[in-house]
Amino acid sequence: MSDASAPGIDHDVPAGEAAPGPPPPLVDRPPVPRRTPAEEARTLVAGVRVATLATLSHDGGPWASLVAFAALPDGAPVLMVSTLAEHGRNLVRDPRASLVVADPHADGDVLAHGRVTLAGRAVTPSGAEAEAARAAYAATVPSSSSYAGFGDFSLYVLRVERVRWVGGYGRMDSADAAAYAAAEPDPVGDARGAVRHLNDDHADALLDMARALGGYPDATAATCTAADRYGLDLLVQTPRGPAAPTRVGFAEPVTTPAGLRGATVELARRARA
Amino acid sequence: MSDASAPGIDHDVPAGEAAPGPPPPLVDRPPVPRRTPAEEARTLVAGVRVATLATLSHDGGPWASLVAFAALPDGAPVLMVSTLAEHGRNLVRDPRASLVVADPHADGDVLAHGRVTLAGRAVTPSGAEAEAARAAYAATVPSSSSYAGFGDFSLYVLRVERVRWVGGYGRMDSADAAAYAAAEPDPVGDARGAVRHLNDDHADALLDMARALGGYPDATAATCTAADRYGLDLLVQTPRGPAAPTRVGFAEPVTTPAGLRGATVELARRARA
Repeated sequence: MSDASAPGIDHDVPAGEAAPGPPPPLVDRPPVPRRTPAEEARTLVAGVRVATLATLSHDGGPWASLVAFAALPDGAPVLMVSTLAEHGRNLVRDPRASLVVADPHADGDVLAHGRVTLAGRAVTPSGAEAEAARAAYAATVPSSSSYAGFGDFSLYVLRVERVRWVGGYGRMDSADAAAYAAAEPDPVGDARGAVRHLNDDHADALLDMARALGGYPDATAATCTAADRYGLDLLVQTPRGPAAPTRVGFAEPVTTPAGLRGATVELARRARA
Repeated sequence: MSDASAPGIDHDVPAGEAAPGPPPPLVDRPPVPRRTPAEEARTLVAGVRVATLATLSHDGGPWASLVAFAALPDGAPVLMVSTLAEHGRNLVRDPRASLVVADPHADGDVLAHGRVTLAGRAVTPSGAEAEAARAAYAATVPSSSSYAGFGDFSLYVLRVERVRWVGGYGRMDSADAAAYAAAEPDPVGDARGAVRHLNDDHADALLDMARALGGYPDATAATCTAADRYGLDLLVQTPRGPAAPTRVGFAEPVTTPAGLRGATVELARRARA
């Protein structure tokens, strides 16, 4: 992998400016699973309806524009664009396209939140795929019913060839096209309400988890920063200083949106046991 | 202009599907000024901090990614990107770039709101321009202080060559680079609070405006949908049915964020006179 996330490639930090590290965990634990880059990408694509498309203009230069999109079951984006728009004329001329899909729930610093770049070729689907693409677009972009029948609009499926996920500062990785197509979007979806509820009403349970399962038996406080099908991310305070983010894992991956609650209750019980 | 907004170029609507038009105004009025496409573009660029960048990958294909940006006084975007990221490596290889900046306040249907595509070349500024670019970036993206000194980050100024503004469905136009550089961002900025206040507390004044100044003396209700330095957009009900959106203009363009209130009060007085 010739990628920026490869080991040994890191920011070019001037000498003497590296900060001292946070206190390490006191208990070694096996790594807690988290979503793969392909799963992160599929989750973003499943949860978002508007993205930015990059196409090639007549002179070969890049052209960025806003588009609505839907997705097929394998995560391939579906676009419907007009040749009255530059991006529509661009795709007729050159099918190469890239789409960036960003977390719509990013409050404050958008760059601290997730986004994914998909790159590939926009093709005109046929047969059953065209029907599926048309149905997915109509379901995801209801306003398209007012223009989907216009002769200047064309339906495209982006055949994904490259996937680059960025989860925020310093969290990024690539996924290959096969892994992207095979991955499942996280059924938990938008967990912000659940995270707020945990912090507001169950700070004691989070502290139990950080002490018993998170590697910090000396934790004095714990805050949940994110929840997904595999577990919870925690920010932990210790008498040795604030720890690096830690993570506690569910017994089983959550398989439905409603399953997050039961998995979290089980985790709290296990932490107290 | 070879543009999609040129007269005579329109959606390819199947025969028999054109809807009947709304009731016309009963009073002819001179056109009310509104922001030019260049002013719309400059206003978006002045009010937004995160955009999507399109660059060219090693194979010449387009690559879309999320970036923070600032702007110089002439509206030229300032970027700071790392060669650890694909877009940073792309700009080293080929300076051609495009940026799409979208209305961050778009609720609901993002495609019904404003966005602008800028296209041009990302150059490394020098001398006073480099200082101005660095200062603008530091002021607009405070988090950049944590990485601006890293050796893998480079500062770029996008020399804007093409500007394409889309205001929502059916509202779009291009601006040339000189008009973009010369235009002023609308000092009114985010007028959503003012619009809400007008609709909640001054429906009578809006109705007066629609009747006396908006061309609809038979108006039975009026709602403000947008406010800018030049005037107000109104949705008007009539006994003949809902009218097409109309517009009422201020006596003088607003020059400060606080000036919107006085201009609206003057407009209400004039409508009652």
